[in-house]
Amino acid sequence: MRLSGQLSNVYARGEGSLWEGTEVVRIANLDNRAVLVVDEDRAVDIATASAGRFGPDLPSVYRAWADVVAWATSVDSSGSVPIDRSALGAPSPQPRQVFAVGLNYHAHATESGFEAPTSLPPVFTKYVSSFSGPDSVVTLPEGNVDWEVELVAVIGRDGHDIAEADAWAHVAGLTVGQDLSERVAQMRGPAPQFGLAKSHPGFAPQGPWLVTPDEFADPDDLELGCAIDGVQVQRSRTSDLIFPVPRIVAALSRTVTLYAGDVIFTGTPAGVGSGRKPQRFLRAGETLDTWVAGIGELHQRFVLG
Amino acid sequence: MRLSGQLSNVYARGEGSLWEGTEVVRIANLDNRAVLVVDEDRAVDIATASAGRFGPDLPSVYRAWADVVAWATSVDSSGSVPIDRSALGAPSPQPRQVFAVGLNYHAHATESGFEAPTSLPPVFTKYVSSFSGPDSVVTLPEGNVDWEVELVAVIGRDGHDIAEADAWAHVAGLTVGQDLSERVAQMRGPAPQFGLAKSHPGFAPQGPWLVTPDEFADPDDLELGCAIDGVQVQRSRTSDLIFPVPRIVAALSRTVTLYAGDVIFTGTPAGVGSGRKPQRFLRAGETLDTWVAGIGELHQRFVLG
Repeated sequence: MRLSGQLSNVYARGEGSLWEGTEVVRIANLDNRAVLVVDEDRAVDIATASAGRFGPDLPSVYRAWADVVAWATSVDSSGSVPIDRSALGAPSPQPRQVFAVGLNYHAHATESGFEAPTSLPPVFTKYVSSFSGPDSVVTLPEGNVDWEVELVAVIGRDGHDIAEADAWAHVAGLTVGQDLSERVAQMRGPAPQFGLAKSHPGFAPQGPWLVTPDEFADPDDLELGCAIDGVQVQRSRTSDLIFPVPRIVAALSRTVTLYAGDVIFTGTPAGVGSGRKPQRFLRAGETLDTWVAGIGELHQRFVLG
Repeated sequence: MRLSGQLSNVYARGEGSLWEGTEVVRIANLDNRAVLVVDEDRAVDIATASAGRFGPDLPSVYRAWADVVAWATSVDSSGSVPIDRSALGAPSPQPRQVFAVGLNYHAHATESGFEAPTSLPPVFTKYVSSFSGPDSVVTLPEGNVDWEVELVAVIGRDGHDIAEADAWAHVAGLTVGQDLSERVAQMRGPAPQFGLAKSHPGFAPQGPWLVTPDEFADPDDLELGCAIDGVQVQRSRTSDLIFPVPRIVAALSRTVTLYAGDVIFTGTPAGVGSGRKPQRFLRAGETLDTWVAGIGELHQRFVLG
């Protein structure tokens, strides 16, 4: 993986335990096939290695998640193939449902001009046509495009009315996400236009892979951030989430049924461009690097339409 | 089909041309298999009749929509099976994306306390775990459950940045929908909680079948309405939509890519319970009948949780 300067250091802090555990399972979407990530450069094709028992498509892997994890811990990695990062897609590319939680960090709610929510924060969707893999070129639409680093959780077991204490058992794993947002359309009109303004092509990069929650010393306390051309603009920890992952899973599932493969964007911390004085948005030619320590990085480059 | 009293008359007015055309194609979801509706009581299993060329699942039928329609106009209906309405599901039960347009009739925007939108109205989602077929029993969650009759369009051809003039060619067909909404959660919090408050189990009944747009003399002018225990509460025409179907398709597709099978709830006219003085919501024991003339009816009965 290309790691440079400041980001490399930040990433490395979470990296100590990577690739060493025996129960660690990392799944990636390589060219629309499910692969088991062996190290940052190589992966095993799940359909091939399981002789067709699992995969090749990602949705079927999430539907069989518990069996895949049990099988994956004893896979022979000798048949691994190189990971071409440009061929990586979103870890769950065809979710039945996509949830995105707004205003889920106190300081971000304040900078956005809203009160911090006391009940479940506003939940909207990012339409799946906005999904991409971790490294991409994003065409800037008209308006003001803002960044939002987010921890993303993918569901690994169907459930309705899930207890908070059981919630992590319903999560297949965690990945890095950017909730790119066009603020002019988002704030125009009689009610906020969350979903559509956050769903331009390429506005939901995710990856590079999905990491099982048991890899982390504390999956509720992960450092995350992003930087524009190497200058850090957001940095926080998921321990500052108003609704942490288990509370989100429990709260959502009181209304909807969560399905294996469903994707949850958990919200962004302070430091977005629209909350700055003066405001500052993404410009053509800039590069946005986004990371969650212990998981990995996204790299987006922006161009004019 | 069970038709009674007032509803029967309303429905019948649109029914003159039903089942008579040679280019009319009606698709339904019978027990999770795609069927071609022959008349209101019988249907042909598409996978069987096409010797496996199409179906049996609905998503594959929408992906092959143009070919399905061409094939369907010459199908021999002698092998038809009875339609059991209790086995009907939503015509597109596994969409990749679900769009719901808010405040899309002037009088409804006013009764909801919002200004009528001048640009694209607020777009939210109804999560697919809320989908059901046309006839169902709905458990009332805590709060105030309101009705919203809506015309629902299903996409039949992928597209991005679709011109308004081409939009109907991207629509597979139209069906009847109810956008049931729990108003307490919807209006609580720092921003409207549209998607979640409208996605309790059974909150998105649709059906009974999908009708191709070319069946209608004018697919942009359909009468729609709903009645509680036989008393009409909403009645309007889709010619009153601020953003009619072609403008919705064009506007959405300027941001997202629309996929075959995607579902669009187009908005509700005036007459919802939260807009009345005094307000009035659905109660256990009541039945809600919902219709779009020329398509058909939904029947929901409400019970306590």
